[in-house]
Amino acid sequence: MSKPILVVGGGPAGLAAASALAGIGQNAIVVEKEPRLGGAPILSGYAKLVPSGEWAKDAIGGMVNRVESDPLVKRYTGCTVTDFSGGPGAFRAQLSSGVALDVGAAILCTGFTHFDSVNKPEWGFGTFPDVVTTTQVEQMLSSGRGIRCPSDGRKPQRVAILLCVGSRDRQIGREWCSKICCTVSCNIAMEIREELPDCHVYIYYMDIRTYGLYETNYYWKSQEQFKVKYIKARIAEVTSDGQKLIVKGEDTLVKRPITIPFDMVVHAIGMDPNVENRSIARIFGIGLERHGFIAKGSSYGSLGEATRPGVFVAGAAAGPETIDDSIAQAKAAAMAAFACASRGHSAAAA
Amino acid sequence: MSKPILVVGGGPAGLAAASALAGIGQNAIVVEKEPRLGGAPILSGYAKLVPSGEWAKDAIGGMVNRVESDPLVKRYTGCTVTDFSGGPGAFRAQLSSGVALDVGAAILCTGFTHFDSVNKPEWGFGTFPDVVTTTQVEQMLSSGRGIRCPSDGRKPQRVAILLCVGSRDRQIGREWCSKICCTVSCNIAMEIREELPDCHVYIYYMDIRTYGLYETNYYWKSQEQFKVKYIKARIAEVTSDGQKLIVKGEDTLVKRPITIPFDMVVHAIGMDPNVENRSIARIFGIGLERHGFIAKGSSYGSLGEATRPGVFVAGAAAGPETIDDSIAQAKAAAMAAFACASRGHSAAAA
Repeated sequence: MSKPILVVGGGPAGLAAASALAGIGQNAIVVEKEPRLGGAPILSGYAKLVPSGEWAKDAIGGMVNRVESDPLVKRYTGCTVTDFSGGPGAFRAQLSSGVALDVGAAILCTGFTHFDSVNKPEWGFGTFPDVVTTTQVEQMLSSGRGIRCPSDGRKPQRVAILLCVGSRDRQIGREWCSKICCTVSCNIAMEIREELPDCHVYIYYMDIRTYGLYETNYYWKSQEQFKVKYIKARIAEVTSDGQKLIVKGEDTLVKRPITIPFDMVVHAIGMDPNVENRSIARIFGIGLERHGFIAKGSSYGSLGEATRPGVFVAGAAAGPETIDDSIAQAKAAAMAAFACASRGHSAAAA
Repeated sequence: MSKPILVVGGGPAGLAAASALAGIGQNAIVVEKEPRLGGAPILSGYAKLVPSGEWAKDAIGGMVNRVESDPLVKRYTGCTVTDFSGGPGAFRAQLSSGVALDVGAAILCTGFTHFDSVNKPEWGFGTFPDVVTTTQVEQMLSSGRGIRCPSDGRKPQRVAILLCVGSRDRQIGREWCSKICCTVSCNIAMEIREELPDCHVYIYYMDIRTYGLYETNYYWKSQEQFKVKYIKARIAEVTSDGQKLIVKGEDTLVKRPITIPFDMVVHAIGMDPNVENRSIARIFGIGLERHGFIAKGSSYGSLGEATRPGVFVAGAAAGPETIDDSIAQAKAAAMAAFACASRGHSAAAA
């Protein structure tokens, strides 16, 4: 029997990797820095997930329950890895709690950091209380409180969702696209229209990236069934006239300036590299790609491998990612880590 | 030991599933209807793949070699499954060759069918020889012949790539987005500019969907390093003035009609459901989603499951998909199939 496999991070990817390993009889150890498992969907209080439509607390909560009740998975929460030495089949991980673990391989499922909208000050977040983020809207939905203007608790009659906040924006050093915000915003727009049928919802976009089957299931559906309106625009600033928020910019389809009043403005915030990636890279002896995400092999023989043999990566740790693809990548990485640890074990035993 | 797992289809997903199973000591059987393994990248002669930059014949060819030399993987080519009975842990697959196989589970990696551009006749394919598809351009590149106008073999000085041919087009019953054509087209545009530095390359688009890290690595790079030009347009028709191809439409950013001459027009063709999906669904007793792709579970507990217990699906069989994600999904499905077949085996033995 080879040593357990270390899974760093207890979000959707980490949970999927651990369950997959246990499913083939392989021991796994999950180390999570927060006091509880679940990652962003649980810790940030997401509502209904794309594309399953399941509530985060049920769907990801179910994954947490499976991991917590699996005798093959050991868990250390509120705890980080501080040192990682050795090689494939025989690594040693030192934890912040003082525990040392002998493991055969490691899978980094360390996720991302939500873009902080205060870094885009001209769009009003931090200045006007009714400028909120998609994460805050998720929390309004999942809490059952519903969509309300934070300033005075009223139901908004007009909501603008601004896409690409912290994405595709060279001015603030975020050149990448965050992949899933378009589709999540379509979904949120439909949720708002469902709760508040009299509320007008506008989505301001550069390109609508509801790729694959999201095109029909989110983009078209949101327009045809939910009457969400889409405006291709370049936003200059979000201000206030004392009563309403004012979104100013240029409608790039008609090449005219637009100045439109709203009750609430939602920033569709992007995915930054995990703010701890430099430290993670140093501890695990791995490289980062140029934006600061964890570098992974792009060759089809090395998908999911980080730059150090025996260390694998899955999910948003390696770039903006959906939950579905994070889970698939995590299971794929689990298979690769299992094979690697078994080979390393045989080599060490020989 | 549980029974072997059946993998239907020998493209990137099928090859990845079979190798992953063998990697954990599980026997797999690949059934491929074509006389050789490799799927679309090999059989359609793709050039350099996105995003690895590896040649298809090396990257996917390498996956074929691994499967062909693996003692745990049995292969039946030029052969289809004609009947599939039983349940998890104890299925029987009847092959067109007369062979019957006892398997524990099945993974459908049956892929897609390239959109046939003759179904979009107003865009000139089939009428003008210099209107070609992305697949034909891939073949020009992979054959080493280079980019030449089929009509007379000259090097084109102006090339237009039209996105969304057979995608996002309700008029012809293709409402879905094919996910990867934008990025593949950026890549092809750069390849053309590299081979023919004097050739002007224009990409006509509705939305540019170079999601995630493709944004910088393809969209921005193609503009900044390779001077590829992007025009947001609605194309009406492709005609000819006897000398040049004429692309007519409306530039939707300036709201003006455009009539521009080109030497070559490339259709970025989309992914249709595999034309055999109805027959596959009947044989395997599974459902299709509304566009005709194989239906799969969207719940996080059932990702990769088809609608019949013990039958799994991965890659473009279930919707437009990239090679990377197809491979990750295939490995994830392999883990799920392995766990399912093992459980089924224990249940049957008990």
